[in-house]
Amino acid sequence: MSKLFLPELMLANGGVHRGAGLRVDDNGNVAEVLDAASIAARTDRTDVEVVRLAGKALLPGLANAHSHTFQRLFRGRAEGRKVGGDTFWTWREQMYRAAAFVTPESLYDVARATFLEMVASGITVVGEFHYLHNDALGKPFANPNELALQVMRAAESVGIRICLLRSAYMRAGYRKDPHAGQRRFYETREKSVANAEALQKAAGRFKNATVGLAPHSIRAVPLDAMKELAAVAGKHGMPLHIHVSEQIAENEACLAEYGETPIELFNEHGLLTRRTTLIHAIHLTGPEMDEVSAAGATICSCPTTERNLGDGIFPADVAARLGISVAFGTDSQAQIDILEDARQSEYHLRLIAQQRGMLDQIGGVEIGTRLLHCATASGYKALGVDGGDLKPGQPADFFTLDLSDMALLGMDETSLASQAVFAGSRAAVRDVAVAGRLVLADSHHAQEEEIRARYKEVQQAFLNEEAQ
Amino acid sequence: MSKLFLPELMLANGGVHRGAGLRVDDNGNVAEVLDAASIAARTDRTDVEVVRLAGKALLPGLANAHSHTFQRLFRGRAEGRKVGGDTFWTWREQMYRAAAFVTPESLYDVARATFLEMVASGITVVGEFHYLHNDALGKPFANPNELALQVMRAAESVGIRICLLRSAYMRAGYRKDPHAGQRRFYETREKSVANAEALQKAAGRFKNATVGLAPHSIRAVPLDAMKELAAVAGKHGMPLHIHVSEQIAENEACLAEYGETPIELFNEHGLLTRRTTLIHAIHLTGPEMDEVSAAGATICSCPTTERNLGDGIFPADVAARLGISVAFGTDSQAQIDILEDARQSEYHLRLIAQQRGMLDQIGGVEIGTRLLHCATASGYKALGVDGGDLKPGQPADFFTLDLSDMALLGMDETSLASQAVFAGSRAAVRDVAVAGRLVLADSHHAQEEEIRARYKEVQQAFLNEEAQ
Repeated sequence: MSKLFLPELMLANGGVHRGAGLRVDDNGNVAEVLDAASIAARTDRTDVEVVRLAGKALLPGLANAHSHTFQRLFRGRAEGRKVGGDTFWTWREQMYRAAAFVTPESLYDVARATFLEMVASGITVVGEFHYLHNDALGKPFANPNELALQVMRAAESVGIRICLLRSAYMRAGYRKDPHAGQRRFYETREKSVANAEALQKAAGRFKNATVGLAPHSIRAVPLDAMKELAAVAGKHGMPLHIHVSEQIAENEACLAEYGETPIELFNEHGLLTRRTTLIHAIHLTGPEMDEVSAAGATICSCPTTERNLGDGIFPADVAARLGISVAFGTDSQAQIDILEDARQSEYHLRLIAQQRGMLDQIGGVEIGTRLLHCATASGYKALGVDGGDLKPGQPADFFTLDLSDMALLGMDETSLASQAVFAGSRAAVRDVAVAGRLVLADSHHAQEEEIRARYKEVQQAFLNEEAQ
Repeated sequence: MSKLFLPELMLANGGVHRGAGLRVDDNGNVAEVLDAASIAARTDRTDVEVVRLAGKALLPGLANAHSHTFQRLFRGRAEGRKVGGDTFWTWREQMYRAAAFVTPESLYDVARATFLEMVASGITVVGEFHYLHNDALGKPFANPNELALQVMRAAESVGIRICLLRSAYMRAGYRKDPHAGQRRFYETREKSVANAEALQKAAGRFKNATVGLAPHSIRAVPLDAMKELAAVAGKHGMPLHIHVSEQIAENEACLAEYGETPIELFNEHGLLTRRTTLIHAIHLTGPEMDEVSAAGATICSCPTTERNLGDGIFPADVAARLGISVAFGTDSQAQIDILEDARQSEYHLRLIAQQRGMLDQIGGVEIGTRLLHCATASGYKALGVDGGDLKPGQPADFFTLDLSDMALLGMDETSLASQAVFAGSRAAVRDVAVAGRLVLADSHHAQEEEIRARYKEVQQAFLNEEAQ
């Protein structure tokens, strides 16, 4: 039976509507957006389940295009400065500890809690950039995709759509010895390709799950292997995600090894395509941005993590002027609130330029509309899913904002996009649907109590280990 | 009858406690923090009302040391770039429109909604920097404190503690003609002093209300008047709040008029004392920061507004090293979430320095503890109220965070301050007490429906006016 969702306001199919309805077909796709008059005219509703979302605004679901779920484990516990100073690389030591800690069972529990937090913040699809492959000693599991499958199980259990971006990670870096903290990440080139293809076959077992390839970075994956992985992704039509230019040091190492920056290298070797998403891409030069634009690649910006790690400020204005598709990701899970990422994308530019409206009216696009598009449709594109606009035929992935949330009070048709981006937050999220099914209803998830309890057990075990 | 609040975790009286109780006396002040054993031993509880806050962490109430409530009216509606570019000064035109629009009745309604939003985000005291004095034509009301009194009424109605910082505003600027958009702000020097003293006398009518003086800025208040107002504040022991160095242009105008920067001028003329709070203070030189430190003055930083207005980044690390007391304010109400302000104070420095832990271990203070202290005790100091630490004798102003909030899951004694600052948000706030009275209970306020309805009417009238 098809469903008819009836919110007060709706951003769908290219416009903002009041009193309209979103009809969803049996496959969980958008069938049509009905205006108020058409709804009133449909007196026979025996063939449709009506879901009233009074006092709420319905928006396309937020896309989290870059996530490492297990990093949730040390949130808020790695903000201090260690003796002798703190940098990105000391944060990484804490990350290694969490990576070493998880078992298939505990990773499942952590992933469920993190995915539930995502859903509760309006996220309907996650690109999980997954680089935990081996057991704690660095040996492959009996099924080398054991941990990836646990993450996909967790996503299905929570009801979030997932693109499992299976990472390839082969070395610590150019002329660097293997690092003990990375022993769960390493695979040979051959295994990496074979395991990724096997995982793609297995994905069909899960609801709303796909697979992409994620050669970690040019630091961790040499060029030849990177090219082979890109060819595999091309063959299967899979998204290709690569970390690039998060830290200046990475660019310098690439120059030393190949005599070119990562982007120059990727461009020269055909690694930049419309299926490519570059994660971070903070320290790009003008010509590099041109190459990204010409290729139609996406950049996934993770402002909340980037401010947390002190990575620097992504030039979102340059990207917008070049028509580069920009998506957002929660990355390290320092916080999970894509609307906050969206506004930071603008705000960080304002802090530097001491000027407002940095992303407004570029190509004639209003700033709120642009940033919401990044947070939705661009993220869906990055993950290889046609969605994010709630057009007929697209998956009915959406979330609602409570119009009585004190931060949004007074939101109307004209201000919906701008107020959602500049004042909205997870505090106002009430309902979330993936493929037309409500996985969050009035801020509640069917399994929330169990998910919380299991996460807390894992968290405690992680802390106990640290205390020893 | 005294009250005993029993949260799961509590940050009070200089420590983090599990299973402890906060006993509040009949005057609404903290009587004592009881440990779990002492609570169990108290078998006779007929003299105390027990309030269980299971599954929650209790923290000292957040202080919002700088607020212009009426600016809530155009939230999310002034983010675009006007034809010909957008700057701080075009944002100000929108602010003038809102300032011109409000009546005593509608200002009351807007202030109530904004104060409720503050309470719902854990704020227990607000410093309302109030500069709307005259009627829409620029004439004083029959009672020249009419609008200030409406704001104080609104605070009492919502239950938030208020320090009404009555602004003096005498001119558009050095060698500038009066500006029509400012006609509601202007008063002569004599009226300004007389009206402030009258308001202080009237404050006794309200619960939890005090008055401070707020010469708007050296741009709007010439030096002689500034000195007189400071003397009046000194005579009555009132806080003195002044905008300073939000924009570089202001410094330049001051140099042109007086041959000194605002801070040099204030220091020379005795305007910097422990009762002085400098709002913004972004573009100070090293020697100016030294002068602020030596005087024991407070700086009120408003990072969310400052990122919104493109003001620039406050050097919080320099201030911390000099031992300057730093408070936070929501200012323009772009968002109301002091915990977000607290983390931005650190994060904006990280973005520039590309380094983590910028405010950690300065003077041996852990970063989360430092930022929470800014958000609480420093704000109370700025507003002339002894509070913010929940020490015996201080007002029992506090809020609770829900430990089952997905963003805070796993919070414990060791991580409370750091997780609250780096992952907490208004989404997790459940209860708020001012002087021991719960004004928010389990996220609900007794008058919330009425407050929302009246705000929405005012918002609509404001939009209708714009459309005409």
